[in-house]
Amino acid sequence: MVQLLEVIDVSAGATCCAPLVKEPLSQQDAGRLAVRLKALADPARLRLLSIVASSSDQEACVCDLIKPIGLSQPTVSHHLKVLTAAGFLTRSQRGTWAYYRLIPEALSSVTRMLETA
Amino acid sequence: MVQLLEVIDVSAGATCCAPLVKEPLSQQDAGRLAVRLKALADPARLRLLSIVASSSDQEACVCDLIKPIGLSQPTVSHHLKVLTAAGFLTRSQRGTWAYYRLIPEALSSVTRMLETA
Repeated sequence: MVQLLEVIDVSAGATCCAPLVKEPLSQQDAGRLAVRLKALADPARLRLLSIVASSSDQEACVCDLIKPIGLSQPTVSHHLKVLTAAGFLTRSQRGTWAYYRLIPEALSSVTRMLETA
Repeated sequence: MVQLLEVIDVSAGATCCAPLVKEPLSQQDAGRLAVRLKALADPARLRLLSIVASSSDQEACVCDLIKPIGLSQPTVSHHLKVLTAAGFLTRSQRGTWAYYRLIPEALSSVTRMLETA
């Protein structure tokens, strides 16, 4: 499995970098963007993110994520950990279960750099 | 190096799929998006794409890409092949040199699926 647990400063991403069609990316900016894209570039993680993101309040209990994804609980937890470390989700524990919520700014900071118009 | 040379139908991508914040991605759509994101998720490829995309007419000669990237010609060619196979660039041979041009719709189809608003 991909080890990708470096924590990324989302707030820096929010103000950073012109779209790549406007000017060549610096090595540093390209490295940061690549780390985020790697976190997204997995079918199970994209599906998990989309279930969380399209849920009420853009939040979902891990207990509601395992069945639709059809993977084991440890695998789902690993993928959620990668998405959280990359700044796309926050995690909060409430009783038995962990809840994951989308950080929309993290996705926006990626789309801003890839936009063409 | 990543082997990622499956050719992707960009035209299908252009009409496909609601943003992932609107509804859960299907397994098939998540798989397709992940393949594209994997092609982007490399610092050298992002830098190459940004140099091509920010060039005049969004086109650049491979001869002008090697020096700014600071990698060997075969490595640069490999990365360009991955970006071309993923539908982000077209390649045309003119005399000695290959020229690469951005396909903006391929980037737009990715940002459309990741957009939050």
